[in-house]
Amino acid sequence: MTLKVYVDRISQPARAVLIFCKVNGIEFDEINVDLVKKEHKLPEFKAINPFGQVPSIADGDFKLMESHAILSYLACSSPGVADHWYPSDLKKRAKINSVLDWHHSNLRRGGVGFVIQTILGPVLGIPTSPEAAAETEQVLISSLSKIESVWLNDYGDFLLGNKEPSIADLSLVCEITEFEVLHEMDRTRVLAPFKKVLRWIEDTRIATSPHFEEVHKAILISKASLHKLPVDENYETASGIKAMRDMDIAAE
Amino acid sequence: MTLKVYVDRISQPARAVLIFCKVNGIEFDEINVDLVKKEHKLPEFKAINPFGQVPSIADGDFKLMESHAILSYLACSSPGVADHWYPSDLKKRAKINSVLDWHHSNLRRGGVGFVIQTILGPVLGIPTSPEAAAETEQVLISSLSKIESVWLNDYGDFLLGNKEPSIADLSLVCEITEFEVLHEMDRTRVLAPFKKVLRWIEDTRIATSPHFEEVHKAILISKASLHKLPVDENYETASGIKAMRDMDIAAE
Repeated sequence: MTLKVYVDRISQPARAVLIFCKVNGIEFDEINVDLVKKEHKLPEFKAINPFGQVPSIADGDFKLMESHAILSYLACSSPGVADHWYPSDLKKRAKINSVLDWHHSNLRRGGVGFVIQTILGPVLGIPTSPEAAAETEQVLISSLSKIESVWLNDYGDFLLGNKEPSIADLSLVCEITEFEVLHEMDRTRVLAPFKKVLRWIEDTRIATSPHFEEVHKAILISKASLHKLPVDENYETASGIKAMRDMDIAAE
Repeated sequence: MTLKVYVDRISQPARAVLIFCKVNGIEFDEINVDLVKKEHKLPEFKAINPFGQVPSIADGDFKLMESHAILSYLACSSPGVADHWYPSDLKKRAKINSVLDWHHSNLRRGGVGFVIQTILGPVLGIPTSPEAAAETEQVLISSLSKIESVWLNDYGDFLLGNKEPSIADLSLVCEITEFEVLHEMDRTRVLAPFKKVLRWIEDTRIATSPHFEEVHKAILISKASLHKLPVDENYETASGIKAMRDMDIAAE
């Protein structure tokens, strides 16, 4: 039975799982669960994931939620996934797990909060406050600073000094590319100081191309909708983030 | 070289790691990093964990942070750890990983926030607000409700219907036993409705006795300090939570 992957491409962890499957040639059926239409709250989806969240997978009778658990399961259970995505060496694997665990209460918490406080909240009517905005921005900046100074070291292009990407790179980069939906001013304020982070996003895109770009096209829909603009058919994946990187290169 | 485990027993994830090591007969040196004395901010500890958090471990030159990553690493790398703690079967392991991932943004976020808003904040001068208190209590109640209705099912005594505990049981239970430091009124309000959760905490204590009780003695120090009371030498581990469970048994 073919693996079923339940996603909405507007979700950043869902995009990470989709890109991973495509890059690694995993055979799967993509099943769209439209979050805007509240399809994640329907009983038929609650039978897959009782908490109503994407991404989720069903591998025959086996159902699994939480993107990190899904990524590590697929890396271990799918034939032909290169070892660098989730190394079999216990110490290398443990290090990747520690980045993934750290992600939850740091980059993800700050990133999701920042997107809500700056654009999603005002547009969708979710309550925001100056205190919550300041707190999430502080968590986000602190997280980006830790990625820049600790998780990205000088040995390789990817997290933990690795020379090839792991599931942690994919998960964390997809969190940050969500910032494409922000107002340029907000995106620049939080991201521009982090030169290594900008380079690493581009390196991860290149390592997972063309699937990275194809899956990220969903952002142009989100962005147009949030900013009440027509969809820009010429949109280039993560072009706002890439523009900052290009400015850095020009300045070097 | 003996494994070094850096902890302060007032930290709930640190307690989970300590109990795991002791239950499984793992040889280690416990190194106390006194959080009240801010020893986690000293350069010598930042050399172990640049983010200054406990628990952390050092296994020779290999350093690891984040309690879930530490627990899964120790389960896989230490000889003689029973399979039920972190099964080698990929699907069983993935399910445990999904509970652990879920924990971060749910029970842990709600639990830590609730403890800060109700007792730690007022005593230590950390800012609190009615809005933040209401939000964290809502996250906590929702998390406990999901443990009660989804993660604890009718097949076994432990999470995911397992008949023996996993590292997820230990991590989540240690989060909840922290509520011993709360005012009784607050603890009862959030925990009393969840009968399966109360039973599961007691089952986990029994499965890991006497190490569970020994490691949890740190709570009597925290509790006495926070409530400005003398240390109760007759304190029984998690007695406030156990009292609720005993009332349930009496009512059954």
